[in-house]
Parts: sequence; structure tokens; C-alpha cells
Amino acid sequence: SETKKIAVIPGDGIGPEVVAEAEKVLRRAEELYGYSFETEHALFGGIAIDEKGTPLPQETLEVCKSADAVLLGAVGGPKWDNNSKELRPETGLLGIRKELGLFSNLRPAVVFDCLKEASTLKPEVLEGTDLMVVRELTGGIYFGEKFRRESEHGEEAVDTCAYNVTEIERIVRQAFEIAQGRRKKLASVDKANVLETSRLWRETVNRIAPDYPDVELEHVLVDNCAMQLLRRPASFDVIVTENMFGDILSDEAAMLTGSIGMLASASLGEGSFGLYEPVHGSAPDIAGQGLANPIATILSLALMFRTTFGYAEAADAIEVAVAKVLDEGHRTADIAVDKSKALSTSQMGDLIVAAI
Amino acid sequence: SETKKIAVIPGDGIGPEVVAEAEKVLRRAEELYGYSFETEHALFGGIAIDEKGTPLPQETLEVCKSADAVLLGAVGGPKWDNNSKELRPETGLLGIRKELGLFSNLRPAVVFDCLKEASTLKPEVLEGTDLMVVRELTGGIYFGEKFRRESEHGEEAVDTCAYNVTEIERIVRQAFEIAQGRRKKLASVDKANVLETSRLWRETVNRIAPDYPDVELEHVLVDNCAMQLLRRPASFDVIVTENMFGDILSDEAAMLTGSIGMLASASLGEGSFGLYEPVHGSAPDIAGQGLANPIATILSLALMFRTTFGYAEAADAIEVAVAKVLDEGHRTADIAVDKSKALSTSQMGDLIVAAI
Ligand SMILES: CC(C)[C@H](C(=O)O)[C@@H](O)C(=O)O
Ligand SMILES: CC(C)[C@H](C(=O)O)[C@@H](O)C(=O)O
Repeated sequence: SETKKIAVIPGDGIGPEVVAEAEKVLRRAEELYGYSFETEHALFGGIAIDEKGTPLPQETLEVCKSADAVLLGAVGGPKWDNNSKELRPETGLLGIRKELGLFSNLRPAVVFDCLKEASTLKPEVLEGTDLMVVRELTGGIYFGEKFRRESEHGEEAVDTCAYNVTEIERIVRQAFEIAQGRRKKLASVDKANVLETSRLWRETVNRIAPDYPDVELEHVLVDNCAMQLLRRPASFDVIVTENMFGDILSDEAAMLTGSIGMLASASLGEGSFGLYEPVHGSAPDIAGQGLANPIATILSLALMFRTTFGYAEAADAIEVAVAKVLDEGHRTADIAVDKSKALSTSQMGDLIVAAI
Repeated sequence: SETKKIAVIPGDGIGPEVVAEAEKVLRRAEELYGYSFETEHALFGGIAIDEKGTPLPQETLEVCKSADAVLLGAVGGPKWDNNSKELRPETGLLGIRKELGLFSNLRPAVVFDCLKEASTLKPEVLEGTDLMVVRELTGGIYFGEKFRRESEHGEEAVDTCAYNVTEIERIVRQAFEIAQGRRKKLASVDKANVLETSRLWRETVNRIAPDYPDVELEHVLVDNCAMQLLRRPASFDVIVTENMFGDILSDEAAMLTGSIGMLASASLGEGSFGLYEPVHGSAPDIAGQGLANPIATILSLALMFRTTFGYAEAADAIEVAVAKVLDEGHRTADIAVDKSKALSTSQMGDLIVAAI
């Protein structure tokens, strides 16, 4: 089959370690399924600040733009936390999303049976939880005008949250379509009793809902959603919401599964291009020690195979291999009950490669 | 002692039922402790829309302004959900907060031992959870300029989030002081890696922190806080944050205690004036049936006694009475394991009155 180009961005902290394991899986998939991948590495985040003086160097953007998909490890760390805005890893993250037009962030929150005990929720509440947060990623208060000014009450800071119908419609249609391929339930989350952007959001959802008559739609206020995720996580299928609410709720949803070290995410734009990354962060405290869990990154690669390339067979095989290795009781330190038996990052990667 | 004036706002749904029980407790406290209260009832929310054509009639505002404290039941319901903005109960709520200058919302989230099982969290995770969310209540995106406009991508909605240093400083100082009276830990929650208002928030917190050297301060990003509340709820003492984040996190915190039918809240301004209300909503589905749990409203009255009037003895007595009645196994339907033995709203109220 034709060669696919993947931009590989190891990033900071444990990023390089977990990405290396995903690359082993990539090579194994080439051997087994006859795919051909060209990978190009690029600097991004803290390491790019250190080496290039900016979190998102122009070359990195070009590598990404010339690729079919991007695999990202993790970015950030305390080293850069007190930098000025232009010299912060997060600024690079916002920049790459905007520049690549990645308006949709898919955050599946599933419970791994063998990790159910790791959740702080009762197992019977968690039973059957399998939801997907569809977060709008290039609009809202993240990207609106921001400034300081003098007011009669001293210095004042302002953030602006704006959404137009085009932005709302494309993410909501995508969420409806995703719901159609799942359990056909969509929860649209807003704060329509207070915010104008939420009222436009809700109007838009209601206007296009008749195009998806097979999907059961509910509107949930964001504060209520934060509660319902705790009370009845299994009752959610797809949740669609704006950028800021999605940031908070997708993290809450990920944490309640107890499987945060295992969750993959995709950021998509128009067409099949996508950026794939683990939900967990750069974990600077354990970086470079071979302690990190590479599973979320390996599953992000599987998500890329399925979503961007349509390589469902390989995606399935990777997911099955991960499940098998876990079922056999293999664990990295983060998910091990008996830490003394924990595998290293590369041992876990090798086992998964062997199980494919 | 001198007569205190309390504005009583039963509101909608179960509001009138639960407020009636709190008034019984009020009368009992007068008898036992020699206090003197003058109560004046006022219309607010849905019922005020129905009877006066506005959720916050001028008279109601005047009754509140002439009072030393306000006791509120609950407002809202599906009947008014599709009304235009001016004719919605929530608009009244935002109005009363602004008009009365209630810039601080205190939301204690505690676990009632006998209700631990009602939480979806594991009991061992919940153990020792006793936190207080201090939410800024009259600023931020709730009150910023809101409008619609035409854009090149169709209709666009805009909300503005603004905070000045004076607003930030007064709520943060209050939170530091509250922490000093508790376990001396303060978590300030923001999204300083993205928002300008959050950066000003964090700078302000850091500037005034040296005035409270006995309080241990941490900064937590809002998405991380949504996770940490689930992972380590007992490690939080006081959480201070802006309006929108506080809305979401205080509801998440309340739900994880499993005791949402039991939680009181206070909205405070300058001086001792305050508005007190249960955290739960108007529960229109069970309204008028004597099924509602009056405990959160009775505890809101206790909070008023303690906070506005400095009647600590009576506040303690009410809280002890509630604990005693619960320890004896008495339950309303919402918290009963065996629903057939559940007490009515007024039976529960009477038992608490008798136990004071
Ligand atoms: C690092 C930060 C800017 C980012 C966000 O808020 O989008 C992160 O929390 C995420 O969810 O990817
Ligand atoms: C009803 C709504 C406007 C209100 C808010 O968001 O402040 C409510 O959720 C609350 O928390 O008191």
C-alpha cells in the first residue's frame, strides 16, 4: 500500500520514552500488514523552546503539514512554567491546534476491566462506562481576544469567548455522526441559562438535530454534567461541548475511569488528517527512568490507524494485544498493585509488540 | 437580644416545603435561646414571574435589603425553562446576587458518616473529606457583556469574562481567612496557562499570600482540579476560584460527598449580611408531596445563625440535632435505603425541632 507520512513529536518529560514504544508497534504493523510508513521527528514544546527559542518552530509546523497524521508524546514541565506566554509549551499546543485546523478533540473514556479497581468510583457505578467527549478545540475563550486594561477598580483582565454557527455546526454534526456509530445517544453540554454563546450553541444543536433522528439528544448544563458524570457515568455515550467545558469534563471523565494512564485521544480537522496523543501529561517526575506506561501512546497509534488511515485490522490487532498483555497480568508501575513486579516502559512495549 | 430581620423566600418546587421546616427550627431557637426574629416572606423566581411578571420584583429586593439575612428555598423549573431571558428564574438569581453585592458563595462539601454509602466514590477515598469551595459570585463571564453579531461565518455570539484586582483580592482574602479558621490549606484554581483573567487571578493570589504565612497555598489548574477532586477529595481544605469554575467544581464536590440533599450554602457580601440556601435544586418532580428532605435548608439556617448573627450556640445545637436524628436512623425518601420507612418532610422537621 502507499506510503503514509507520520510526523512524530516526542516532546517533553516521558514523551520520548512512550513515543519510542509506539514506534516499535508501528514497525511491527508494517511487517505484519505490509503497510509503509515514513516517519519524521520534530521538536515541539519545552524542548523546542530550549533548542529553537519557540515552542512551535516553523519547521515543525511544516513537518506536520506535509504529514498524513501526527503522533505526539507529551509537552510541558515545571522548567517552563514561569516563562512568558510566548515561551510556554501550552502556547505551542494552542498554536498547533489552530494552525492545523484541529477543531475537534475526541477523548474516549473507557474502563479497562483489569483496572476497574484503580478508579475511586465504586465498581458497580463504573460498570459499562464507555463514553466519548467531543470537545471543540479551536474556538471559545481559548482563542478570543485577551487583554489588560486599567479600570476604576485597578488593573483588569479580559478574556473573550466567541462562537459562530459555522464552528458550532461542524463540531456538533461530527458528534452526531460519532453517536450514530456508537450507542446513538448525544449529550450536548452548555450553560444556556447564563451564556450567550451557549444559547447559540443550543439553538444550533436543536436546528440540526432533526437531521439525525436516530440519535437521542439531551441538553445538559455544564454544572449538572459535572455531577451526572459522577452519578451515572455509564449512561453517557457521546458528550459534545465547547472548548473550556470540554477541557474540564474530559479530564473529569478520564479520571473517573481509573484508566487515565491508558487513554488515547485524537484531534481532528477537515478530512482525514489528525493529531494523536495520550491523555496523560509529560510526568516530569518520572521522566527518563523507564517507568512510564506506554499503553496510552500505543493506543493513540491504534486510533490513528483506524481514524486517519482506515487500517481497522491493525488497529484492532493492537487493541487486542494491549488487552491480552494486561489480562496476563503485566503492569507498569503506575498501574501495578505489586510495584516490585512492575515492568519498564520498554518491557511493556516489547510485550505488546510480541502479542500483535 | 435585639430583633433580627430575616427575608424568607420559599421560591419554587420543593422550596416552600423545606423552608417551612426551617421556620419551625427558627421558632424553636427563639424559645430556647431568647432570640427574636422578624420574618418577611417575598416572591422570587418562577412564582414571581407568574404573579408579578418578573423573577425579581422590586419589593422582594427591598424586603431583602431591609433584612439582616435571607433564607432561600429553591427556584426554577421546567415551566419557565423556555421563557425569554428576562422571564427566567435564573435571571432573578443573577440579579439578586448582583443587587445585594453577594460576591462570595461558600459551598461546604462534607460527608455525613451515615450517608457515606450514598456516594458513588469508594468509602476509603471519601474518608475525611471536608472541603469548602469559595466561589466568586458577581464577576467573570456571568456578568460580562454578552451579544450577538454577524460574522463572515454566520451569526456569532460573544460572552466577555472580566476580573479586576479589587474583585479578585476581596474574594481571595476571604478564602485565606476561612482557611485560617480551618485546616490552613488553600487551593486557588485557575486556567493561568490559557486565560488572561486567570493570570491576573494568580498574580493577585501570589501578591497577597505573604499576608497569610500560616496558610499553605497551592495553585491548581481547573482541569486538573476536576480530576484531583475525584482522586484525593480529602486532601482539599479550602478551594477558591472564579465564578464559572466555581459553579462546576462546587457541584462536582457536592456530588462526590454523596450528601447533596444535605448541603447548605451561603452567599455573602461586605459585612455580615448573607443569603442562605440549600445546594439542591427545586426538584419539581417531587414538589408538593411532602417527600423533600428539609435538612439542607435547616443546615442553611444554622449557617446563617453562625455566620451572619454569630449565634454559634444555636448553630451548633441545630447541627447536633440533625446528626442525632440521622444517627437514630431517620430518613427522608431521598436518603432512605428502605423507602417504605421514609419520613415526610414535616416529620423530619419535627424530629429535628424536638432534638434541639
Ligand atoms: C495545556 C492546556 C493548554 C491544554 C488545554 O487546556 O487545552 C490541556 O489541558 C489539554 O486539555 O490538552
Ligand atoms: C441557576 C444558575 C444561574 C446558577 C449558577 O450557575 O450560578 C446555579 O447553577 C448555581 O450554582 O447557583
